[in-house]
Amino acid sequence: MSHNDLDTLKHHLREFADKRDWNQFHSPKNLCMALSVEVAEITEHFQWLTEEQSRSLPTDKRDEVATEIADTLLYLVRLADKLEIDLLNAALDKMETNKQKYPVDQSRGNAKKYTEFAK
Amino acid sequence: MSHNDLDTLKHHLREFADKRDWNQFHSPKNLCMALSVEVAEITEHFQWLTEEQSRSLPTDKRDEVATEIADTLLYLVRLADKLEIDLLNAALDKMETNKQKYPVDQSRGNAKKYTEFAK
Amino acid sequence: MSHNDLDTLKHHLREFADKRDWNQFHSPKNLCMALSVEVAEITEHFQWLTEEQSRSLPTDKRDEVATEIADTLLYLVRLADKLEIDLLNAALDKMETNKQKYPVDQSRGNAKKYTEFAK
Amino acid sequence: MSHNDLDTLKHHLREFADKRDWNQFHSPKNLCMALSVEVAEITEHFQWLTEEQSRSLPTDKRDEVATEIADTLLYLVRLADKLEIDLLNAALDKMETNKQKYPVDQSRGNAKKYTEFAK
Repeated sequence: MSHNDLDTLKHHLREFADKRDWNQFHSPKNLCMALSVEVAEITEHFQWLTEEQSRSLPTDKRDEVATEIADTLLYLVRLADKLEIDLLNAALDKMETNKQKYPVDQSRGNAKKYTEFAK
Repeated sequence: MSHNDLDTLKHHLREFADKRDWNQFHSPKNLCMALSVEVAEITEHFQWLTEEQSRSLPTDKRDEVATEIADTLLYLVRLADKLEIDLLNAALDKMETNKQKYPVDQSRGNAKKYTEFAK
Repeated sequence: MSHNDLDTLKHHLREFADKRDWNQFHSPKNLCMALSVEVAEITEHFQWLTEEQSRSLPTDKRDEVATEIADTLLYLVRLADKLEIDLLNAALDKMETNKQKYPVDQSRGNAKKYTEFAK
Repeated sequence: MSHNDLDTLKHHLREFADKRDWNQFHSPKNLCMALSVEVAEITEHFQWLTEEQSRSLPTDKRDEVATEIADTLLYLVRLADKLEIDLLNAALDKMETNKQKYPVDQSRGNAKKYTEFAK
């Protein structure tokens, strides 16, 4: 594997779309819709499960979910590429922001949104 | 950067959740819902734009979208981790499957789903 | 109230959009995206709640959810109108189909999709 | 049809779920997920279409979309029922709010969110 797997995926996806002349369909607007469809295909697996059941999927179910999660990642990488966003750096930056927004002492054990912290 | 950026993100996210005692909230079911919320925050930026406008976002808008795309990736990595799915391998496998499902000669220049190809 | 409340909403929404010259933005594609954003705003309220908590929302929370549910209905009515779909009849037809697809004796107490019933 | 079609649908859905002993699955959290899946099934029809194409669907396609729109309405009615929300009144109230938030003179011909109006 290359030293940067998101870049590897990005280049695979470019080649895939170029060969099929699919850039015409891959506007960020359309890719965003396709992304939301893939996420719903993950959701479909979980909608009637309890949280507990979702934590211990049988293997065949987990493999099906893995495929939908893979599709989601592929569209996400493709969307970022079309917008010329460096996906890895954006994610690392956001992690830093999240550390600021959710200080350990105010966030421990609760799922409050940062805007709901008592001032 | 490490030789595998998705792994790097995975470990950052584990530490982030552990420190805040958030594993209790991070069932795959809940993470899937959070993922869908983040994708909708991307969608919100594109819903009233034409495809053409979505292809040429002004810089400030693009930076806002980058943040939502980053959030989406973070939840996706976290969800895969909780399900013990190797995200990179799943994506590479799916790319191979897609190459089979969408042969170049049948797919060129059309967006038909593979189930719609004439037999 | 009129004898048909979905029609009433439809006419309100037409007038609302006409006055603001918003028909140009209200393509079914765009309305579909807006609809998905509204549903995510419902999801945002439930993502970290247990099922049990979701069954007994505090009043202020329930009022917030009601607003998002209302928005969802408004976009759904608008989308159906733009596609010239009779929403009420479509829903009544689908109820009949569901009764066929999910016979009481095969469906009682399980959430299997109809395609998973043993033959 | 009854004098209130959303109520009619609500009662149909109650009976449908009661007979199948499905109330155990119909937590608002789960219904919200199911709702998002149905909306994605609408999205799937529009993701690769231009706005213009979405405005003039062929009849068979439109019928398929009608079925997904119907499913969406059914889950929305069911969700509102489980939360004891009066769906019609919530929608009428929201229409009034929208008229305040989007004054005709500031909204005509643009799709700005009300928070973006110049003060």
